[in-house]
Amino acid sequence: MRYPNGQKRKSIQKASRQIRSIGFGNRGMTLEADINATNAFYRDTDKAVIHKKPTPVQIVNVHYPKRSAAVITEGYFKQPSTTDYNGLYRHKHIDFEAKETKNKTRFPLANIHGHQIDHMKSIVNHGGICFLIIRFSIYNETYLMPADTFFPYWDKQFNDGRKSIPYETIQHKGYSIPFHYQARVDYLAIVDQLYF
Amino acid sequence: MRYPNGQKRKSIQKASRQIRSIGFGNRGMTLEADINATNAFYRDTDKAVIHKKPTPVQIVNVHYPKRSAAVITEGYFKQPSTTDYNGLYRHKHIDFEAKETKNKTRFPLANIHGHQIDHMKSIVNHGGICFLIIRFSIYNETYLMPADTFFPYWDKQFNDGRKSIPYETIQHKGYSIPFHYQARVDYLAIVDQLYF
Repeated sequence: MRYPNGQKRKSIQKASRQIRSIGFGNRGMTLEADINATNAFYRDTDKAVIHKKPTPVQIVNVHYPKRSAAVITEGYFKQPSTTDYNGLYRHKHIDFEAKETKNKTRFPLANIHGHQIDHMKSIVNHGGICFLIIRFSIYNETYLMPADTFFPYWDKQFNDGRKSIPYETIQHKGYSIPFHYQARVDYLAIVDQLYF
Repeated sequence: MRYPNGQKRKSIQKASRQIRSIGFGNRGMTLEADINATNAFYRDTDKAVIHKKPTPVQIVNVHYPKRSAAVITEGYFKQPSTTDYNGLYRHKHIDFEAKETKNKTRFPLANIHGHQIDHMKSIVNHGGICFLIIRFSIYNETYLMPADTFFPYWDKQFNDGRKSIPYETIQHKGYSIPFHYQARVDYLAIVDQLYF
């Protein structure tokens, strides 16, 4: 979501959502904004220590003006080699990726990169809690799908060539994440059920 | 280390080290380069999944040329609100900060930010493994100091005003990290002794 067009689309989408959102309660914020607000609430209430990682940037040129902050004058977005979010909850390592789609019928696997899957597989192998948060923004529905449940659909694409997961599958194999005013995407409510 | 002068100093320092390092075995690389190489080795051998977080950048302007990658044309370095490194080892969350000093007699506490200490304290409270890696580059000595050992020295500065930790203290309260050709800063060897 952080690459040229993705970036562009995202900001346009975000703007339109914010307009649409007036008077729609939990509608209108991007998934990332909702998760950041949720993580801030978890930290403020000392429930968990989970952060979004900074966007990886390849810094090419930096200008150092006298008596003022360094300015990056040339940089490029790099593909993240890990998931966007990780941290610590109830003594366990938590690691997840979050994606939203405007698609009505399926989640396109192109939203995830292969090296992110490799990372998620090693998190699972080393005893971490790992999952995806998937939002269908048209329906304003957000699901938690455990990594172990997701992997077979990812791997399957290299056999049958199916490059997406049907909406119904995510409804049935995933867990609907409740909305709360402060914990806007209260994913730890699901984590408590699944992993403890 | 990521701010205007810090950045400048660091690159100069790095360059001079690399010249100096010719024929000096483990001498010459910056601590960050050594830890990155070590973490890559840990991942390649599937020993642990530990990454450096990207440098946080405040992106102000992005240019989207046709048919080529987006270019960040204005950005600024942000103060990290967490530690630089975290991940997963033997089912446990690992979180640490790494700093090197050219000082011969003490480690200046100004190398660490207050909000990083707050973060480290909550990592400890939530059951994570948390420590600092401190290198005295003049001596080419690298130490692991557990967060619990470090906190009192940090807090003490607000009483007696002492803004540094003596080199001898770090020698005695810290643990010297062995150098290996591939695991250049083999801090997990110390973690195995202290936390398992």
